[in-house]
Amino acid sequence: MKLSTKIQEMNYSPIRKFNSYAAAASEQGKKIYKLNIGQPDIITPTVFFEAIRNFDEKVLEYGESIGNIELREGIVKYFKNVGVECTKDELIITNGGSEALLFIFLALLNEGDEALMAEPFYSNYHSLIKAAGGSIAPIPTIAEEGYAYASKEKLEAALTDKTKVMCVVNPSNPTGTLLTEEEVRTVIDFAIEHDLWLVVDEVYREFIYDGQEMSSFAHYPEIEDRLIVVDSISKRFASCGARIGYIMTKNEELHGNIMKLAQSKLCCPTLEQVGAAALYGLEANYFDETREEYKRRRDAICEELSKIEGAVFRKPGGAFYVMVKLPVDNAEDFLMFLLTEFDVDGETIMYAPASGFYQTEGCGINEVRLAYVLKEEDLRRAMQILKLGIEAYNKKKANK
Amino acid sequence: MKLSTKIQEMNYSPIRKFNSYAAAASEQGKKIYKLNIGQPDIITPTVFFEAIRNFDEKVLEYGESIGNIELREGIVKYFKNVGVECTKDELIITNGGSEALLFIFLALLNEGDEALMAEPFYSNYHSLIKAAGGSIAPIPTIAEEGYAYASKEKLEAALTDKTKVMCVVNPSNPTGTLLTEEEVRTVIDFAIEHDLWLVVDEVYREFIYDGQEMSSFAHYPEIEDRLIVVDSISKRFASCGARIGYIMTKNEELHGNIMKLAQSKLCCPTLEQVGAAALYGLEANYFDETREEYKRRRDAICEELSKIEGAVFRKPGGAFYVMVKLPVDNAEDFLMFLLTEFDVDGETIMYAPASGFYQTEGCGINEVRLAYVLKEEDLRRAMQILKLGIEAYNKKKANK
Repeated sequence: MKLSTKIQEMNYSPIRKFNSYAAAASEQGKKIYKLNIGQPDIITPTVFFEAIRNFDEKVLEYGESIGNIELREGIVKYFKNVGVECTKDELIITNGGSEALLFIFLALLNEGDEALMAEPFYSNYHSLIKAAGGSIAPIPTIAEEGYAYASKEKLEAALTDKTKVMCVVNPSNPTGTLLTEEEVRTVIDFAIEHDLWLVVDEVYREFIYDGQEMSSFAHYPEIEDRLIVVDSISKRFASCGARIGYIMTKNEELHGNIMKLAQSKLCCPTLEQVGAAALYGLEANYFDETREEYKRRRDAICEELSKIEGAVFRKPGGAFYVMVKLPVDNAEDFLMFLLTEFDVDGETIMYAPASGFYQTEGCGINEVRLAYVLKEEDLRRAMQILKLGIEAYNKKKANK
Repeated sequence: MKLSTKIQEMNYSPIRKFNSYAAAASEQGKKIYKLNIGQPDIITPTVFFEAIRNFDEKVLEYGESIGNIELREGIVKYFKNVGVECTKDELIITNGGSEALLFIFLALLNEGDEALMAEPFYSNYHSLIKAAGGSIAPIPTIAEEGYAYASKEKLEAALTDKTKVMCVVNPSNPTGTLLTEEEVRTVIDFAIEHDLWLVVDEVYREFIYDGQEMSSFAHYPEIEDRLIVVDSISKRFASCGARIGYIMTKNEELHGNIMKLAQSKLCCPTLEQVGAAALYGLEANYFDETREEYKRRRDAICEELSKIEGAVFRKPGGAFYVMVKLPVDNAEDFLMFLLTEFDVDGETIMYAPASGFYQTEGCGINEVRLAYVLKEEDLRRAMQILKLGIEAYNKKKANK
């Protein structure tokens, strides 16, 4: 009675790994500023709940495997607003962006196939690619270069004869890096030249700052046959608990085959789709306010971080994460210290240690991902606690 | 740019395959009695909707990957009522029973591994096992023997050195067959003797008729280390569109590893879990009424079926399906006839052709699965239409 090789090679979530220590600290009355998980404190638009409250069918029936038609029509309109043409038949609604990725990798990867991806990467990519029998071929990046990866040299250096897919998260989780139009062009040329599938995760599309323009991969017709866009309402509409994501692809063969998986799980939840359809009915200016709010938070967290001597980071162009190299020997060890030994007037902080975002042994040991998902004053306070924590931790280490 | 071998080997749902023809017939004003899908017309308990309407958090947050604690506690109580002892930490909430199965097979099967299973089987098992890289080793059964399979001889004849898992759906979808206690014992001894994982799908547990007792595999402590129970609220509480299922296993290593998959998809929808928790708060006698209703339906459909000359079937002991061998040459061809050429006063019927429930080439060609999920009078009317349809179809065939 053995387990499968693939499940044994999967990792536990590095983001959720310290949850039990945090729970214990909370139980002891400690207040924890949670910057470890992309769970914003932004209020979910009330139309979501209203639409669900107004649902008046007596029988909660199975829906269509491809997804609720009103929701798909809403997404088509949304895409049109951001310059992406697609039809409702090119979409498949999934249980969050995570299921979208699982289905895509199951549909594309054979055992031993590789997916090219910038490292550090959102750790679930590792899990979901492993679950499909594949593995990540990492493109190394460094904090000092703002985690840039989209150059011909870097991409080709990571390519092997096993590479079948190129994965892009833009703007990036965990680094917040936004590709320039030139970099997007480089990735496109590379995917065409080496005949790769291009999986593009644009769930943070609306969170881009400083007036930069988002160059969606779906704007380029020359790759429409190899492109698979992953999207989700979780961050976009502060609806993480709804678990509604979707796949968009114009490749009919791929769409048809992913539908086999969609049929095998029958359908997505009916009520959540009703709520999600209502979200896509919001005016486009809904995003302006949240974008402004995240920008203020980004600026605040970066300002406070710059007061920490030895911290290395770049102001991120998008999403709501910032990766920081901290002046500590080990970010996991330091996090345990913060949760179990340290507080400032009963308060401490939590982050995601970055080693879980690296596959390459020994990388990211003293890096952390901070999700700026709290109010500005909370973020400032959290960074002040971080600064004091570093001092206390390093003093303790020096005294040993 | 190729697709994975596993996705290419997966099938489209045979249950949903004829939906477009049914939609076209409906558009032309035809009324269709839909016996093709296990979508009951039973009303979803109002507590489900009420609990969701009363949800008053402002931010719809991620939940725990293992599942909502109130829901898990409700399931523990439910299990206790049916004689199964488990703790909330032995459960994992999933997006329906389908995701539970996908996760289990991903955790157990390597490429080439086989899962033993009685044929005909619920077609999604084929898809979900394929998605994990495995395949089904079918145990052949026949209508004339009531699709019985749980004998030492039959089980051993299907065993190979690739067999890693034994799957049981009890009572069965699609056949409605309920295992006797002796048969359960046979399966248990077989699994122990050959050191197999035992995946037991008991989602129809509450739908057992004629005063028979359900012998859950979870009643036998000697297999608790190899047992994985799959369960769901879809049928039990007429909540198909909620997509809430779960896994129960006392094998800590397996539970821990499946949690990697649960973490990779973050969590199940928050609201649906709130509704499901309320369902598990219903009194145990909730099931008495639905069970009585399904029994009446089963008796009605069987009575009408017995008036069709040449139809071969056994009165099913559980679930809400009956498999019937019809006096036609081809059940798929006949279904197309029913949907596109035939009606009785503007009405026709739809069923699931059984060939999709068989893996062995040429099996089930003239068999169908009828889901008795409609009201008694509708079922009787549907069976009368079926009878007339068979006559018309065979007359048309004879005239060719």
